[in-house]
Amino acid sequence: MGKRPTIADVARLAGVSRGTVSFALNGRPGVGADTRERVLAAAAELDWTPSRRARSLAASRAFALGLVIARPPQLLGADPFFPTFIAGVESVLAERGHILVLQVVLSAAAETEGYRNLARDGRVDGVFLTDLRHADPRIELLAELGLPAVTLNRPDVPSPFPAVGLDDHAGVEAAVRHLAGLGHTRIAHVAGPAHFLHGAGRAAAWRAALAAAGLPPGPLAEADFSAAGGAAATRELLAARPRPTAIVYANDLMAIAGLTAARAMGLSVPDELSVTGFDDCELAEHVHPPLTTVTMDVFGWGVRAATALLDLVDGAAVPDAALPPARLVVRGSTAPAR
Amino acid sequence: MGKRPTIADVARLAGVSRGTVSFALNGRPGVGADTRERVLAAAAELDWTPSRRARSLAASRAFALGLVIARPPQLLGADPFFPTFIAGVESVLAERGHILVLQVVLSAAAETEGYRNLARDGRVDGVFLTDLRHADPRIELLAELGLPAVTLNRPDVPSPFPAVGLDDHAGVEAAVRHLAGLGHTRIAHVAGPAHFLHGAGRAAAWRAALAAAGLPPGPLAEADFSAAGGAAATRELLAARPRPTAIVYANDLMAIAGLTAARAMGLSVPDELSVTGFDDCELAEHVHPPLTTVTMDVFGWGVRAATALLDLVDGAAVPDAALPPARLVVRGSTAPAR
Repeated sequence: MGKRPTIADVARLAGVSRGTVSFALNGRPGVGADTRERVLAAAAELDWTPSRRARSLAASRAFALGLVIARPPQLLGADPFFPTFIAGVESVLAERGHILVLQVVLSAAAETEGYRNLARDGRVDGVFLTDLRHADPRIELLAELGLPAVTLNRPDVPSPFPAVGLDDHAGVEAAVRHLAGLGHTRIAHVAGPAHFLHGAGRAAAWRAALAAAGLPPGPLAEADFSAAGGAAATRELLAARPRPTAIVYANDLMAIAGLTAARAMGLSVPDELSVTGFDDCELAEHVHPPLTTVTMDVFGWGVRAATALLDLVDGAAVPDAALPPARLVVRGSTAPAR
Repeated sequence: MGKRPTIADVARLAGVSRGTVSFALNGRPGVGADTRERVLAAAAELDWTPSRRARSLAASRAFALGLVIARPPQLLGADPFFPTFIAGVESVLAERGHILVLQVVLSAAAETEGYRNLARDGRVDGVFLTDLRHADPRIELLAELGLPAVTLNRPDVPSPFPAVGLDDHAGVEAAVRHLAGLGHTRIAHVAGPAHFLHGAGRAAAWRAALAAAGLPPGPLAEADFSAAGGAAATRELLAARPRPTAIVYANDLMAIAGLTAARAMGLSVPDELSVTGFDDCELAEHVHPPLTTVTMDVFGWGVRAATALLDLVDGAAVPDAALPPARLVVRGSTAPAR
């Protein structure tokens, strides 16, 4: 196995200076489009991946890490994930003298712009990639920008970046097994948006667990992780005949709204309908009935991801890592099928 | 490949001074619309984009604002305020080429340390002061550090910083008036921690509104804004005789947990107990019964606070500002007293 390619190798192959390579890879102005393309082609040919060494040519360090979140504020405000994840990240950053740069953007275009600006201005030394999407274009963007990254779980496209994983599918599978064990045979799913890997992944886990339990595929309603979306999806599922006797939700917010929607349709939970959530938000055990849901160590995920990203920025070889899988917490919203 | 264009090149092409270019590109006041347009056209023609790091070194500015949040992550994850406020802030920052540095800390000591580090390292040009506390020591700390700040509402100590206000008391008063109008005479309050000005302020507003309605002071239970705390406070209030017929909560999370706690004690809401919240989180209208609560424009608050802080950092005289007061949204959790 040969030596790891350097910026100098890329420069030689592209027939430009090392400075031009660095500028091209960092997306800085002043590099013509065709030069830039030549540099990227050379980098790809040599299988060059961004590293601290590459960036050190271009800029001093920012001692900052970035997180760009693309979500409507309304939805973000109801999601317990990011505050907890960020708290975990910050517990590491504070110790290692780094800061977190947070961008909340409202569109995919603003998101791309956000990453480009962070890279161009040398605002951050690396970024966290969360809410991975199907064929996520950010992987290529960040590689092109020369911005080190850590992804939460593995993307479904080739990625040069280390992944810090937490198996959320295990939690969904446990929920389906729990319901099947209670005698349910018509187990529906209210999914998150299919373009998110976690949305699609939880749906796939639900489907696989049904098959493993020898049950027919249940009905699925896709929603947007919001309470309103969860309520609408619940009404849709419960209008069908035969009616499902259990619903597995992709997050707590939709599940809690689903409890209310089911009740409004005259159904008693858990007597006539069992319900499971995902997140174990603080409210989950303070609704009626207390929500059976899936819990995972989001704070620890933040700790682990921040550690990995700082190591990567420091030039270390960072392998993929995994946290303990998500697990089911059984409370009062699930009961034997009637 | 040509030399990278500079501000001087843009100034020459636009026929203005370098200072004007800088002002126009920074969105500062005092540059006419057509001058600004000419500068932007010249910058576009030359394919010039600002190098933020170069600018910040030259101007010793960070082009960044800071927000330090001291909350347990569990609690933060359930609070719709910060994500929405941050989204409002970022909508302004993105436009004006600034970033947000976020610190989530777990203790008051870490918080002080956080501000000191941000100032010492020149990480930010100014900070937002939220969750104001009684005799808030951060006012003096920031003045001492020479770090410009904008406070959300006025502190109860002399402050050199502009305040961007939103009268949340008005919402609590409206809730009490609404309940008094429904014939309730024993109206209790589940308060936030008294060391927070918003916690103490909402309690004071509840007390004043009771007096204004000619009602005796009701019982108060202090909690911590968490669901668990709200449930415990509710059980305490409902164990007293005579029992209150209505409870005004300082946030939605405690109110929703309170609905469940009351139900567990065999009380029907709103028939035997009326309940009001504060925040109007997305779940509020998707619980049973839908929560009567107080709503306010948190996104707009973020917009206004960011605008004020950027102006302040730019050296402008920034007067106090105020957003429309919080107001009551009547839903199903309140009904006439029996």
